[in-house]
Amino acid sequence: MHRRALTKPDGRSLVLYGREPVDEHIEAPAAGAVTAASSHLRWHPLRGEWVVYAGHRQHRTFLPPAEWNPLAPSTDPAHPTEVPGGRWDVAVFDNLFSALGSTVPPPQEIVATAPGLGTTEVVVFTQDPKASLGSLALDHIALIIEVWADRTRVLAAREDVAYVLPFENRGVEVGVTLHHPHGQIYAYPFVPPVAERQLELQRSHHQSRGTGLLADLIAAERAADQRTLHVGERALAWVPVCARWAYEIWIAPLRQVATLAELEPEERRDFARALQIALRKLDRLWQRPMPYVLAIYQAPTRGVHPYAHLHLEILPWLRMPGRIKYLAGSEVAAGTFTADTLPEAKAEELRAVEISHD
Amino acid sequence: MHRRALTKPDGRSLVLYGREPVDEHIEAPAAGAVTAASSHLRWHPLRGEWVVYAGHRQHRTFLPPAEWNPLAPSTDPAHPTEVPGGRWDVAVFDNLFSALGSTVPPPQEIVATAPGLGTTEVVVFTQDPKASLGSLALDHIALIIEVWADRTRVLAAREDVAYVLPFENRGVEVGVTLHHPHGQIYAYPFVPPVAERQLELQRSHHQSRGTGLLADLIAAERAADQRTLHVGERALAWVPVCARWAYEIWIAPLRQVATLAELEPEERRDFARALQIALRKLDRLWQRPMPYVLAIYQAPTRGVHPYAHLHLEILPWLRMPGRIKYLAGSEVAAGTFTADTLPEAKAEELRAVEISHD
Repeated sequence: MHRRALTKPDGRSLVLYGREPVDEHIEAPAAGAVTAASSHLRWHPLRGEWVVYAGHRQHRTFLPPAEWNPLAPSTDPAHPTEVPGGRWDVAVFDNLFSALGSTVPPPQEIVATAPGLGTTEVVVFTQDPKASLGSLALDHIALIIEVWADRTRVLAAREDVAYVLPFENRGVEVGVTLHHPHGQIYAYPFVPPVAERQLELQRSHHQSRGTGLLADLIAAERAADQRTLHVGERALAWVPVCARWAYEIWIAPLRQVATLAELEPEERRDFARALQIALRKLDRLWQRPMPYVLAIYQAPTRGVHPYAHLHLEILPWLRMPGRIKYLAGSEVAAGTFTADTLPEAKAEELRAVEISHD
Repeated sequence: MHRRALTKPDGRSLVLYGREPVDEHIEAPAAGAVTAASSHLRWHPLRGEWVVYAGHRQHRTFLPPAEWNPLAPSTDPAHPTEVPGGRWDVAVFDNLFSALGSTVPPPQEIVATAPGLGTTEVVVFTQDPKASLGSLALDHIALIIEVWADRTRVLAAREDVAYVLPFENRGVEVGVTLHHPHGQIYAYPFVPPVAERQLELQRSHHQSRGTGLLADLIAAERAADQRTLHVGERALAWVPVCARWAYEIWIAPLRQVATLAELEPEERRDFARALQIALRKLDRLWQRPMPYVLAIYQAPTRGVHPYAHLHLEILPWLRMPGRIKYLAGSEVAAGTFTADTLPEAKAEELRAVEISHD
């Protein structure tokens, strides 16, 4: 992995990554005016969680005309984008409209409040606006995994960051406003509820049985061999037995590692292979890009977590061609998912999808 | 409240409620063929919650032609709907495509499984397909609250029901397929995660301070008087200080009662008034019906819960006219809401909306 760190004229960070050395002469283009983050947190006493308020984001970029793509390499100095031209594969920069990153004192309120510390980054997966994460070559996907690991390492070193979550929102159904292939990284000043719950359950499983919760689940899924999509030597992709979304897919290294940074090169390559297979199957299933949320769960930045097992979840938004899985009464109000299909049946469909490898 | 219990020709229950006595001669119409529920539960070990699998629901009714409304009173014996004609105000019947209500033994799996016990009901709010919950007269809304209470009482008496959640999904943005004004009731065989978490936080607050968490919050919101929408003698409607959705509204009786059934007539009437005001303000805000999920949180059916405080939450789906609040990476993958607006600003907008009372 090659990297080159730059600073944008507006002060934001821009880091370029490449499989080959990144061009030396590249300079960071000057994109739009920065909106200073003025976010703060409020404690939700009936849910026991923080809510982030970022009032400056209401008027953020929304479906700009197709000809202007702020994530494509800059070609016209009069209309700079967020990333430069030149030789690079992946670019990471501070989000222009960040939900986090404010040190402004929070307002006094009738519940606990806190400053909106932490930060958010944008990860441009490729220079090609027509590509997608799954369509990329294997070594390009492996580089993105290295980039996620590098960002996690950098962000975890900050005093105000407790948890680093790389994710991708994809498709208009998920509310995506920019269609250039990209993901985001949220570096939270607290461990968010879903991650905290996973850790708590992994800890109690480890305490009572001495084994890893996810490692045990992986072993059981491999033995059942009903829902697996890629059984690699070092990584597994499968539809979990408890899938909430119809075509939900999880990917994990077989070896229990807590963060992306701990993956050995061969493990990273197999993880990339599993991810490529999963995403290509989803996009080939109905011959259209599947809208999804993809997220990577790692250990928190602080403390020791010998039970934490890195994994990636892909949550596809469609349950049938053209039909969204709406999150409504049961899912949102009760927190209980109702699924219309069995994971085994969906796994069978995905297993039957033939894809190209490269 | 007047009620008349009937049984549909297919065996499902139909209960008619009225402010006036329900017509004696009414018979239950025979609607479509029942799809036997074959649901089961699987334990999600990384979230510590049940997932409901109801495979028979995939092909349920989806946006039928406007002329056929299965929730409108039957007029043509050749094309019966779910509810009869005649004098009644509110109808409740067993859901034709129920996500719960199966006693079939669950499959053996690599995680814990359980039969999909419990049941689900449909609550038709009115005979008028053009009305909405908020547009109804005050005594009609008060009747609906009595109906929710009656159903809670009936369902809570079942051995297989641990929690009763009345809710309404409203609007195509929430995935609603039938536009006749109606809600649903899910009677779960377990206490669902959101309710469980609320109870746990109310219990620990009560243990450490000897007061009610929601009662304290209500007192603080009344004192701040910045976000209140209806300050009644017995009920409050307000935008909570920790609102996750832009126009989120909570309604609660001032007196700490655990279930709808414990409301005194005057409390119920003030609760109905608060609900009417909240819904009318949402619909007048942009002169269009606001899509939302509305849910009522009560104590579980079993055990003693001296700290539980009944309340209703309205979660509106739009953050600006025509712009949905998408639940994506941070909300779905991390469980952390990012809000673009402050509750105070949204409350101010709602406070300024003038509505009619009746």
